[in-house]
Amino acid sequence: MSKVPKPVSGFPEWLPEARRVELQWIDIMRRTFESYGYASIEPASVEEVSVIQAKGDDADKEIYALRRLSGEQTADEPRLALHFDLTVPMARYVAQNFSALQFPFKRFQLQKAWRGERPQEGRYREFTQADIDVIDQGSVSFHFDAEMPRIVHKILQTIGIDNVHTNVNNRKIIQGYYEGLGIADPMKAIQIIDKIDKIGPSGVQQMLMSQMGLTEDVAQKCLQLAQIRSEDTGFIDQIRALGVSSALLDQGIEELKYVMDRLSDLPKGSVIANMSIARGLNYYTGTVYEGKLGDYPDFPTIFAGGRYENLVGTYLNRSLPGVGISIGLTRIFGKLLKEGRIKLGEKSPTHVVIINTPESDQNELMRKAELMRKNSVNVEVFHEPETKTSNQIRYATRKGIPYIMFASEGADEIKNLETGEQTAVDVASWQPDRHNTYQSRIEPSQRCSVLPLAVPGPK
Amino acid sequence: MSKVPKPVSGFPEWLPEARRVELQWIDIMRRTFESYGYASIEPASVEEVSVIQAKGDDADKEIYALRRLSGEQTADEPRLALHFDLTVPMARYVAQNFSALQFPFKRFQLQKAWRGERPQEGRYREFTQADIDVIDQGSVSFHFDAEMPRIVHKILQTIGIDNVHTNVNNRKIIQGYYEGLGIADPMKAIQIIDKIDKIGPSGVQQMLMSQMGLTEDVAQKCLQLAQIRSEDTGFIDQIRALGVSSALLDQGIEELKYVMDRLSDLPKGSVIANMSIARGLNYYTGTVYEGKLGDYPDFPTIFAGGRYENLVGTYLNRSLPGVGISIGLTRIFGKLLKEGRIKLGEKSPTHVVIINTPESDQNELMRKAELMRKNSVNVEVFHEPETKTSNQIRYATRKGIPYIMFASEGADEIKNLETGEQTAVDVASWQPDRHNTYQSRIEPSQRCSVLPLAVPGPK
Repeated sequence: MSKVPKPVSGFPEWLPEARRVELQWIDIMRRTFESYGYASIEPASVEEVSVIQAKGDDADKEIYALRRLSGEQTADEPRLALHFDLTVPMARYVAQNFSALQFPFKRFQLQKAWRGERPQEGRYREFTQADIDVIDQGSVSFHFDAEMPRIVHKILQTIGIDNVHTNVNNRKIIQGYYEGLGIADPMKAIQIIDKIDKIGPSGVQQMLMSQMGLTEDVAQKCLQLAQIRSEDTGFIDQIRALGVSSALLDQGIEELKYVMDRLSDLPKGSVIANMSIARGLNYYTGTVYEGKLGDYPDFPTIFAGGRYENLVGTYLNRSLPGVGISIGLTRIFGKLLKEGRIKLGEKSPTHVVIINTPESDQNELMRKAELMRKNSVNVEVFHEPETKTSNQIRYATRKGIPYIMFASEGADEIKNLETGEQTAVDVASWQPDRHNTYQSRIEPSQRCSVLPLAVPGPK
Repeated sequence: MSKVPKPVSGFPEWLPEARRVELQWIDIMRRTFESYGYASIEPASVEEVSVIQAKGDDADKEIYALRRLSGEQTADEPRLALHFDLTVPMARYVAQNFSALQFPFKRFQLQKAWRGERPQEGRYREFTQADIDVIDQGSVSFHFDAEMPRIVHKILQTIGIDNVHTNVNNRKIIQGYYEGLGIADPMKAIQIIDKIDKIGPSGVQQMLMSQMGLTEDVAQKCLQLAQIRSEDTGFIDQIRALGVSSALLDQGIEELKYVMDRLSDLPKGSVIANMSIARGLNYYTGTVYEGKLGDYPDFPTIFAGGRYENLVGTYLNRSLPGVGISIGLTRIFGKLLKEGRIKLGEKSPTHVVIINTPESDQNELMRKAELMRKNSVNVEVFHEPETKTSNQIRYATRKGIPYIMFASEGADEIKNLETGEQTAVDVASWQPDRHNTYQSRIEPSQRCSVLPLAVPGPK
């Protein structure tokens, strides 16, 4: 007898009743992406190490390289590694298939990614991301900068997650403002400011002064920008009040104003112009997004993205800018599951168990089951005719199956195990009450699986 | 400028118009599995190396181990490896979650697996499998031995793949027959017989004689069994005619008879009792399955499985036998795609592009689009009002989008780009003709994506 292996830390697995809900979320994401015209692609799980490293920032140590367990090691190994996000594979895929794609190319990916980080709350080593991006030739319409948060908002609403803050900023505002202040290395300053949530305003000010040699005045000015928030276009007056100006700053303000205007119909407070948001990854060049769960303000970012210029085109010596957003499905699902906020599903997708007896005509039971499956009813003929009826019912109950059926010629009856109600049915047309049963195809208008906070507000 | 990386051999990727069809296949598989009461689970992509090696046969060299690219190597690395099938992870998952699961536990997995083999036709290094298994305590009902091929048959029919041969056998027949012949090591003989497709009957006979010391007579008898085929229970008389007997043989015949009887309603010739099928993997103990594409007889097995006793229970010192089947989705899809047998989809899921103009009220276009999305219509408002209408139409045409809409107050009109027909519509209720457009939710009764062979029969 082998010992039962322990779960591997950072590689989450769910029981069937939770997986059912996760699948529902995945369905909602896919359906919503498609409803806006985004097509599925699924690049390989691996990239050449050189491709990953070219984009990886300081992510090298987090990359899982592959090698065959008992194969000969060759000089150039490791050559392949698991991707750590879905953006790098998308960029490589678009470059490889450039002539076969139509632009603007709108794609979604619902895929796993891997990072060898130390597992902690919200950080997994294997996790599913839901990404959409638009890539175009020459320039990308700002229409899409506004569309990204709208799609994410719609998905989270459909899932039942209401209290979400979508923070939006524009790198040109930060960069232009710093240029207006005469800061020589705006990128360096952006990376320092990006730590504001971790080390606080005074920590950031110290770093700006000590690492970049800024005066206290200039460092203060940087911090003043980073503290601007508005739920509408009020950020503009707040920036203007700081008395800094540059052409790039003006351009950034225009772009962010467009996005905020286009999202003004979303519920008040759900979209925030937030000048502290920079996104550390240095490929962003304009709009940036960062989403947080309002109920859990200390929990990491649940979606993020932005506009970039050189991620795809660099392979082809063309201008192929893009804008995209990435939802951390596993991160959100794992958190809400842990907090008891997920309404778990049944343990089985079955709607009805047909009771089997030694006297039953097995072919007839099978025929009836097939008839019901044609109407998208999920059916099991109980597998053992010799099993006592009470035990067959217990099987259904234990798996959370809502109905059982007693089949007999011309007089089939279905019993609702919750209410005890038993009625004669026509198997060729019977439908379960889908509000109380498994939905592999939830309608976009239905909201589903997330429970309200028991105690409102952060815990 | 970086060079465009070459595709990595053995890691297939499809264009959006092919991926759309693959997603449809995945939907059909999932829907069908669920309609028989199988619940989704998704174990991690990795297992501890020791878990994989315990089951891996001689698969060690095909296993991809993980190590962090720039991390410190520790003494016990590699500790994790990508799974090479979906059965080993399922067995470990069931053992880990034993007390939380209800039995018989019926699960499906639609997941990737990885093998570091040399890529060749039908063999990939990354591929998607669709598996169902039933695990029960003590014993598993033979109901499920018959259900497995039925479910696979239904899936392939729905996809549009008709010419499939499902070969069924029972390891007890082979083992019992060999015992009846007095062969000391039936397992060894089974492994040799399993090579019959590769090295032919005379090669097998030679190996049986040289490696196992069998007489020519006994080796002949082995071959005679392996050459028995029947499309019904005719295999029984053929075996009896060979004059070999044992209790285990009788039991195997009974079990196979049950399966063949229960599948007798499937189209003639689609299920074959085939005494040459043994499945090399030594964990099978009863029923075994092996599926082939009738149009491509030299192409490898497209689905396979069987009954096993000790895969799960070994962790828990309990009897937890199971029966399962695994469909090689990527293998089938890749082959039919290569042969030009896949009817490709559109490049976009969008049903209708709403034409945009500088005079359009942008909020009104967005509102109409949302109204249509509520009815599961996939809609894009064209992203740039300044783009000439002819170019907006060209965008739709190039992406294979079937409809465009001219929006104006109280008089919206939709044009079918294929027929040229243009009609006034009510956006709150309009539906595309779904027979000609994208189907993310194909009905089980619809058949879809596989074209008939241009020239019937094998090429």
